Amino acid sequence: MTSATVSAQTFRAVDVIRAKRDGKELSRDQIEGLVRAYTRGDIPDYQVSAWLMAVVLRGMTRAETAALTDAMLHSGEVLDLSALPARKVDKHSTGGVGDKTSLVLAPLAAAAGVAVPMISGRGLGHTGGTLDKLEAIPGFNVNLSVAQFRRVLETCGCAMIGQTAEIAPADRKLYALRDVTGTVESPYLICASIMSKKLAEGIDALVLDVKTGSGAFMKKEEDAAFLAELMVETGERMGKQVVAILTDMDQPLGRMVGNALEVAEVVEILQDGGPGDLRQLCLELAGWMLYLGRVSDSVAAGKKASERLIASGEALEKFRTMVELQGGDPRTIDDTKKLPQAQHSTVLTSLKSGYISSIGCEQVGTACVILGGGREKKEDAVDPAVGIVLHKKVGDAVSAGEPLATIHYNVESRAQRARQLLEESFHIADSPPGATRPLIHRVIGKSGEKN
Amino acid sequence: MTSATVSAQTFRAVDVIRAKRDGKELSRDQIEGLVRAYTRGDIPDYQVSAWLMAVVLRGMTRAETAALTDAMLHSGEVLDLSALPARKVDKHSTGGVGDKTSLVLAPLAAAAGVAVPMISGRGLGHTGGTLDKLEAIPGFNVNLSVAQFRRVLETCGCAMIGQTAEIAPADRKLYALRDVTGTVESPYLICASIMSKKLAEGIDALVLDVKTGSGAFMKKEEDAAFLAELMVETGERMGKQVVAILTDMDQPLGRMVGNALEVAEVVEILQDGGPGDLRQLCLELAGWMLYLGRVSDSVAAGKKASERLIASGEALEKFRTMVELQGGDPRTIDDTKKLPQAQHSTVLTSLKSGYISSIGCEQVGTACVILGGGREKKEDAVDPAVGIVLHKKVGDAVSAGEPLATIHYNVESRAQRARQLLEESFHIADSPPGATRPLIHRVIGKSGEKN
Repeated sequence: MTSATVSAQTFRAVDVIRAKRDGKELSRDQIEGLVRAYTRGDIPDYQVSAWLMAVVLRGMTRAETAALTDAMLHSGEVLDLSALPARKVDKHSTGGVGDKTSLVLAPLAAAAGVAVPMISGRGLGHTGGTLDKLEAIPGFNVNLSVAQFRRVLETCGCAMIGQTAEIAPADRKLYALRDVTGTVESPYLICASIMSKKLAEGIDALVLDVKTGSGAFMKKEEDAAFLAELMVETGERMGKQVVAILTDMDQPLGRMVGNALEVAEVVEILQDGGPGDLRQLCLELAGWMLYLGRVSDSVAAGKKASERLIASGEALEKFRTMVELQGGDPRTIDDTKKLPQAQHSTVLTSLKSGYISSIGCEQVGTACVILGGGREKKEDAVDPAVGIVLHKKVGDAVSAGEPLATIHYNVESRAQRARQLLEESFHIADSPPGATRPLIHRVIGKSGEKN
Repeated sequence: MTSATVSAQTFRAVDVIRAKRDGKELSRDQIEGLVRAYTRGDIPDYQVSAWLMAVVLRGMTRAETAALTDAMLHSGEVLDLSALPARKVDKHSTGGVGDKTSLVLAPLAAAAGVAVPMISGRGLGHTGGTLDKLEAIPGFNVNLSVAQFRRVLETCGCAMIGQTAEIAPADRKLYALRDVTGTVESPYLICASIMSKKLAEGIDALVLDVKTGSGAFMKKEEDAAFLAELMVETGERMGKQVVAILTDMDQPLGRMVGNALEVAEVVEILQDGGPGDLRQLCLELAGWMLYLGRVSDSVAAGKKASERLIASGEALEKFRTMVELQGGDPRTIDDTKKLPQAQHSTVLTSLKSGYISSIGCEQVGTACVILGGGREKKEDAVDPAVGIVLHKKVGDAVSAGEPLATIHYNVESRAQRARQLLEESFHIADSPPGATRPLIHRVIGKSGEKN
């Protein structure tokens, strides 16, 4: 009897469930066995959901988390991009409101000579998704085959697609189950889900943007830091350079929230303009990508190089090329007014004078979902044109009657609900707020220099 | 919109799962909604198993446990036995090795004028089951319809059947799911499972025999006491008189382990003979049943009355009547040699002289399962004839070469495995053991007098 036969015969899902329930550390074999059997359909959802709940409540050791990530990674195809001479570096964000940095970073890093094979997701809850933003560009195809993906990557140095059926199928199946069984909120499961997909891209290094604040999934900084450390350690255990930047998501990033609006803001940034916070974060993350991609000697040098590539128009040209290669209409990049436009707009004005003390970030994200810019149910279609433009951000002075935000909408009743939510989300104080939250909280990871 | 419609629309299983995951107390409506929807098939196994695991790890309050019991009880038919003038009292044991007290108690209490509508289970793991023992009597039918059950009960005062499809269907479905998802071991779920079935019998009072020791499911006395208190409190919340007796299961009860052998030992007890420990426990539990059944003024008086009903042969006659009414061959009661007999027997003798210091109780139960007296898999048929007769119990003196046990078997290879296990289960010391464990540990419950 071969050892594979023995293990198939002796693997019992219920033993693995009971061990985790009792707080025991699972072996790599047990975790692999469970993931493999589940992906194949050999064990039922109801056993896996019980196990997932035991993981949520009992946690996992670092070794278990790495074993789970590895098992999920190897449940499908792992891209081999070794034929590309450039270092492959990706960036992943845990999700926020107005976070369109991926659309800036992929072409920017590619312009610097780093290869960026980026596989992204859709909007989740109140947060936006990179794929939804890309699809606001008429014709843009995020559903490339692996061969097409590789071709775009080879041609322009970056390519942006959605998860394919071949990549980490265990994650697809597990994520769908977690979503309906109250087992999403576990740093161990979140880590394995993110890292298995990212490592399947065949990357050498990864920059993680872990959000914290009222608009993030991890509201508390300690929770965000814990997840960041877990992902960095898991990536390093698997031989990758990983760094995590803890960044602020206590107010929306930039001024635009909504798919086409955000693409327009991406173009602004790549045209050497755009809001300061968004530009700062893009440069910080790009600095790390260039440094880990070994095209810059330090993160600071990477930032400087990124500034130059934006100022020279090379990053924008790279974005235009990628859009065209993926079937998108490049004229919408040349003139963002050609992006989908909502039929109506309405302005929300301040009822009093003072200073913006805070903006309910999750509420702004939810208002955009209500307008149709995100999904209330999985089956919902996304309206690319709708969204919110913020005219004021935290710390700004405002006079009574001055515009706070403009709502771009197509359906009147939705605009009313969104408006109400937005009104509640602006908090105005008589005096300027004290110390404001920094955009970059801290850097976690041992991958070379820290700034 | 009626309130039922609102609740159907607003009930989301995932919210209930998340609340329990986060350690919150669920409302009666949430628990009822979950149980009702699951019984109907409106929510899938994978959501319920995640919820069950959250219950195992987070626990339940007394109010939640009562709500769960109530919801499971009302998932099916609740017998209305109010037409019977006698008080309806049942007894339930949490399971042990050699525990055949139910077969003594039902006719004994019935002979005293108490009605005993007993719905029992099958063997589970290393422990025996009342239904398997009854089926060792040729012809005995445990699958009566509710109408037949009622008729036997009215005619002779006691009836013993298995769970029907009408009784607590939620428990059937939940138990099957718990069995394969590592969610059996929760006192809250065990309590709801037992109490929902027992309260569906339409009883006025219940005597619980909660086992503790090496042969019980709850090895530790504190765990057994916790479960006992939970069941007593849950029953009382639902308006029933409930008392729990914590009894010892550190060695098999009586001398016989195996279905037909145990029926023979039941007849011995009812013939005013049998082993002392079994007789003592039967009288203790019968005393409580008669007291709660209001045919005796005290537990002590109930014990005395029980002794008389055994000595007079009235209890045995009641047993014979019930056997006959349920289709069993009464001649096997008149002459227990007519019960199924194994083809072979072999005697295990002591290798040394000394005193029995302990008997591995779970091992003896497992040895009986191996012989075919219980099930290794659910589908297995039970061999009624096989089993073990213990010639020595804890504290007994033994000489080298003296018989410790006789194994009754039909399959040689099974006998060998059982023999090995039995050999390991007898521990012999040079001197007599010190204080032996009492048979009755304590009584839990506020139902009148304590002894």
